[in-house]
Amino acid sequence: MTDSTAPLNIHIYTDPEFRQSRDFADERVLGIRDEFDGLAARIALSFSHDEASLNAALTDAEVLILVGSLDLADVAARAPKLRWIHITSAGVDRIPLDRLPEHVLVTNAKGNHEVRTREFSMTALLMLNNRLPDFVTQQREKRWAQTALEPIDGKTVVILGMGALGSGAARAAKHLGLKVIGVSRSGREHELADISMPQSELKTALAEADFLLITLPLTPETRHAVGAEELAAMPERGGVINIGRGPVLDVAALAERLEAGKLRGAVLDVFPEEPLPADSPYWTTRNLIVTPHSGLYDADYVPRCLRFFFANVERYLDDRPLENRVDTALGY
Amino acid sequence: MTDSTAPLNIHIYTDPEFRQSRDFADERVLGIRDEFDGLAARIALSFSHDEASLNAALTDAEVLILVGSLDLADVAARAPKLRWIHITSAGVDRIPLDRLPEHVLVTNAKGNHEVRTREFSMTALLMLNNRLPDFVTQQREKRWAQTALEPIDGKTVVILGMGALGSGAARAAKHLGLKVIGVSRSGREHELADISMPQSELKTALAEADFLLITLPLTPETRHAVGAEELAAMPERGGVINIGRGPVLDVAALAERLEAGKLRGAVLDVFPEEPLPADSPYWTTRNLIVTPHSGLYDADYVPRCLRFFFANVERYLDDRPLENRVDTALGY
Repeated sequence: MTDSTAPLNIHIYTDPEFRQSRDFADERVLGIRDEFDGLAARIALSFSHDEASLNAALTDAEVLILVGSLDLADVAARAPKLRWIHITSAGVDRIPLDRLPEHVLVTNAKGNHEVRTREFSMTALLMLNNRLPDFVTQQREKRWAQTALEPIDGKTVVILGMGALGSGAARAAKHLGLKVIGVSRSGREHELADISMPQSELKTALAEADFLLITLPLTPETRHAVGAEELAAMPERGGVINIGRGPVLDVAALAERLEAGKLRGAVLDVFPEEPLPADSPYWTTRNLIVTPHSGLYDADYVPRCLRFFFANVERYLDDRPLENRVDTALGY
Repeated sequence: MTDSTAPLNIHIYTDPEFRQSRDFADERVLGIRDEFDGLAARIALSFSHDEASLNAALTDAEVLILVGSLDLADVAARAPKLRWIHITSAGVDRIPLDRLPEHVLVTNAKGNHEVRTREFSMTALLMLNNRLPDFVTQQREKRWAQTALEPIDGKTVVILGMGALGSGAARAAKHLGLKVIGVSRSGREHELADISMPQSELKTALAEADFLLITLPLTPETRHAVGAEELAAMPERGGVINIGRGPVLDVAALAERLEAGKLRGAVLDVFPEEPLPADSPYWTTRNLIVTPHSGLYDADYVPRCLRFFFANVERYLDDRPLENRVDTALGY
């Protein structure tokens, strides 16, 4: 696809509204590029931080790195040479992929969250088992009630979504001695799951869940995949964790059960609306702990993400297959 | 010591003021006794739940199980046949041991906390590393600030007190990939510590601590073992955990550093005054998480405690050495 003499034209657009954009500073990107021998001579990098500059750059861009969100249908029309879009997050729900022309490849940052996924899953599971949601609520109420705890070893977690995040979560769960029920669209067996079930049997799986850990990406089919009915299928001792995407969980239904004491607690890293607005009722929901979309966000995320991208650029230049291709029909 | 024909006279006093007393119900004690073949015929068990009934029973008691606190000097004077007191907690600071006559043996529940110690230490270390104190404070303020996290693997924890609790904590820390600096009175080497130091060098150890985990028992020498000076020796990224006894840590000094942002966070399971009074300032101290003396308290604590005791009773009846003898001079 590339003219072997001209450098590959790569444009990096960082959405000024996106919280992580500051971490993708131009100099940082150039620094990582320079770690790759000879790459600087084979590519031409340009940057924009507003749509006007982006528009000017799109005429020539063959590759677009997207940090944040953008109306891609529009972009494709304005970028005649565009062949590849790389998205610097694991979830690609910010971008309407189905409006992209078919000749444009899409890749994402799947797998970049592995270490953090394991550690944060372990943290959240232990917090639920050690009644931290309850204790934090008591602390807000200035109330001291000593509570007997149970060992986590031998309890059961249902992991909803067995992709990259689900695998990391499952690894954490096995490490803690949990029984893992892996629930995925297909229900196909997974090496880290003791039992695998299709999403159509989610409620059956939840009946024996001490913990539900949600890792699903957001697609039209996963919106409110966990709603009032699914939560009602869980035992009262159950706890809920969401590290996937906010709208996958019906937070209003969860809050209702938590307030009624029908679930033991929740640790939510993601919400349907982020940042959670100051007047949201979820800040003070009983036994609900809010972590501000930080669980999987580590200090090394951006350099690792850029290293992955430039390694993929080398593959592209050498006509090898790209890693982390996104299926634009499935949305992940 | 025992008349081989008469049953051993064992009296169980449960302090009505003590929060865990309800878990030592008479029937529960008898149920556990009956798990031991032939033991019912060799012992005579009696129970009291107030000091008047206790007084009547003390005339004949050779063994006293103490659940909660009691003025032991007084008890010894009133119990001429008393030879052994078993205390159902690991800490024996509620009881002035130095006022006991020398012929009275004391045993405690050391080691009964092992599983919980490991799990709660792991929970608290992960919570600090994943900025939960910060996030819980933000939640109280209805504030959302996404924060990059770091892997816990390779960080350093100073464990103060390398007895039964310290060993459990060290096991948890090694499991998480932490470097362990074990600090004890003697500074003697410990198989789970990468480095061992005497308490006189605590401040040196703290200079490189990402986490300080306190497990010390309360003795006259350990009161405020961690005070303003020790906390000032820690880096600002440091976090503090106390699962030992409240007065070992100067909580006022800790709160001051937390409020000033000079430490990253704390998870405190124990306090100088328990229950923490409703008007305590520590309920709302910035980046301080309160767990109500529950971290090491598990649902199986009491049955396990009683099984340990009755196994010791069999040793006593057979003239074998008792396990978990407390050194009444050292206080642990």
